Amino acid sequence: MSEKQGYTVVDGGSIITPKGFTSGGLHCGLKKTDRNDLGAIVCEVPAAAAAVYTTNVFQAAPLKVTRESLANGTLRAVIVNSGNANACTGEQGEADAYEMRAAAANHLGVAESDVAVASTGVIGELLKMDCVRSGIAGLPEKLGGARGAEEFCQAILTTDLVKKESCVQVQVDGKTVTIAGAAKGSGMIHPNMATMLGFMTTDAAIDAEDLHSLLRAATNVTFNMITVDGDTSTNDMLVAMASGLAENEKLNRLHPDWDAFAAGFTFVCETLAKAIARDGEGANHLIEVQVNGAVHDEAAAAIAKTVVGSSLVKSAVFGADANWGRIIAAIGRAGVPVSPDRVDISLGSIAVLKQSSPVAFDEELALAYLQGDTVLITVDLHDGDGKATAWGCDLTYDYVRINAAYRT
Amino acid sequence: MSEKQGYTVVDGGSIITPKGFTSGGLHCGLKKTDRNDLGAIVCEVPAAAAAVYTTNVFQAAPLKVTRESLANGTLRAVIVNSGNANACTGEQGEADAYEMRAAAANHLGVAESDVAVASTGVIGELLKMDCVRSGIAGLPEKLGGARGAEEFCQAILTTDLVKKESCVQVQVDGKTVTIAGAAKGSGMIHPNMATMLGFMTTDAAIDAEDLHSLLRAATNVTFNMITVDGDTSTNDMLVAMASGLAENEKLNRLHPDWDAFAAGFTFVCETLAKAIARDGEGANHLIEVQVNGAVHDEAAAAIAKTVVGSSLVKSAVFGADANWGRIIAAIGRAGVPVSPDRVDISLGSIAVLKQSSPVAFDEELALAYLQGDTVLITVDLHDGDGKATAWGCDLTYDYVRINAAYRT
Repeated sequence: MSEKQGYTVVDGGSIITPKGFTSGGLHCGLKKTDRNDLGAIVCEVPAAAAAVYTTNVFQAAPLKVTRESLANGTLRAVIVNSGNANACTGEQGEADAYEMRAAAANHLGVAESDVAVASTGVIGELLKMDCVRSGIAGLPEKLGGARGAEEFCQAILTTDLVKKESCVQVQVDGKTVTIAGAAKGSGMIHPNMATMLGFMTTDAAIDAEDLHSLLRAATNVTFNMITVDGDTSTNDMLVAMASGLAENEKLNRLHPDWDAFAAGFTFVCETLAKAIARDGEGANHLIEVQVNGAVHDEAAAAIAKTVVGSSLVKSAVFGADANWGRIIAAIGRAGVPVSPDRVDISLGSIAVLKQSSPVAFDEELALAYLQGDTVLITVDLHDGDGKATAWGCDLTYDYVRINAAYRT
Repeated sequence: MSEKQGYTVVDGGSIITPKGFTSGGLHCGLKKTDRNDLGAIVCEVPAAAAAVYTTNVFQAAPLKVTRESLANGTLRAVIVNSGNANACTGEQGEADAYEMRAAAANHLGVAESDVAVASTGVIGELLKMDCVRSGIAGLPEKLGGARGAEEFCQAILTTDLVKKESCVQVQVDGKTVTIAGAAKGSGMIHPNMATMLGFMTTDAAIDAEDLHSLLRAATNVTFNMITVDGDTSTNDMLVAMASGLAENEKLNRLHPDWDAFAAGFTFVCETLAKAIARDGEGANHLIEVQVNGAVHDEAAAAIAKTVVGSSLVKSAVFGADANWGRIIAAIGRAGVPVSPDRVDISLGSIAVLKQSSPVAFDEELALAYLQGDTVLITVDLHDGDGKATAWGCDLTYDYVRINAAYRT
């Protein structure tokens, strides 16, 4: 697919498909069930590395530790737990995050400054460090192979129902470069600058600085364009590691294969972001909102995110109700310029509004369309060239059920 | 109550308690059930009048007509229908709104330019004008008495379960001035500048300009501080009429009784706003969020509205789950300055966070508190003197059920 953009999707590929990476996961006791709750990705060489973080004022302890590790632009490993976010846990929480990093460095045989730490789960409770310690001690023997990648993906999930992975290959200097990613996220999803937990691996040779700028650009049009519930987590983090083992010439904006690499990288981010939206807490449908013809891209993005985040639009999709009045009401409150008299709206290929006036449509056809797995809402404002796409999910009884008793 | 602020609550008072006003309502056929769907408030003299409107880009036809009528600062009547918003209905919708105004003026014997028009209900469908015409013809005989006020309050409701009224009295120049209001609103509630439909009546003597500035100030701290679902309607409108029949000296900021009048006026607005939040679609609980110690009042307001609007906080209140992690996550994404290390949070009188660190609390006590009718969340940021209060409601299965099939 997308051959014209110069990358190929690797079916069955994972975060260990790029050369130099292994991973693993296990259950150490942080989750009440026996599902995995601790995992690691390890690179056999120092990987050029970059990360983006949540914009929430209250940032969890592991983010502080990871920022420190990334100061030198390299990583050998990422250690991740689920079941506990280690957020709003004060000095003890910070000490625990540092200890997690030290233990991982010790058992994996790498420098502390080359280990990133990520946590996800309940806010405001201290980590059970005895579980974490024994878990980390047992991790090295779990690393390796497809099984290890699977165990890692399971270890980072919370209310997620399915694991999220993507992998592509690109030709750079005639050499095959692989780019892969894994992510988690289901609730408290309204990323702004970063996302829930996401991990990108590649064997491309690229400097940390160039990796960082690509990571930011890709995040802006993928992870930052999804919403499940409008709530931004305290723990969002997206980490990328590049082993360089594909032995290409260093990639940067001037490299002839940069566009293909960037397109492949962005595709992996978009695939993971959409997988998070589709697996939103309680969701039955993936909702994609494409806005065209806005005064500029930023206006289009604001409108796309407002529509996909509207509780009323989300409820209407759950009920397969072609209630375009809620779509236009959401467009009108997005806080950006819109000419009120020339808006077109379609649900899939069914036009429901033309030049801001209702179009008669076949209700049964609309019902059938809205009952499908994916609902595409297209908006054309005829105000300019700005465009953007955002993704989300419907609001269901199950979202309320899951979140009425998440902690207790 | 609130004697110190100089006003007295009138139990059983309504929009016709101020001198000079009558009202009525009836069922004309816009709603599928036999509930009232058309109503009017009429003043026996030209009332000084003012209004505030939704900030949504897509404003319904009746708002245009009402703006025109209010250009001269007086009103004799407001005609209102529910069941159909007359929004996104193009030129025909505008013609219908003008015809509604003309018919009301004709049957009530007043000038067209003294009639305001308001509509609420489904977006994007044309009004059944035959129902509206025959309804308006039948309205004059329905006007009058407590029964008429009751019928009016019923006629403006949509998914509301209860009518919303409030009435206070103030002494001005030793004369009794009465201020009353009625409102509707249950879903698509996230007012910004105005609210859902709201109607204020008073027999105070006051110029339209002073009434307008008071209306705006009161709206900012009441109707603009409630949210049910973050969605701003196309039809929000709050209209105030002052008959002047209390025969006080004209009220303005220099009048010695201005503060008492403003306090009473604001109290009526706040009572109606809280009633809308409490009657939010599917709601079981009123949530009140008080923020103190912010860098300024605007920051406090942004934080209070973000917390009360968080789907995760709303779901947790529905589940009586003392999940303060969601409260702090919402504070941290409000987009205003907050010192992350000194936040206090209480649920009622139960402290759950002090200086941003968890406080051990009695879970059973918290559960019992959260199961009560009203949940008060208090936040102290210790950053300054800014404070604000916002109101909302919990997110329940019924909200999703109501909105999954509102239109069909």
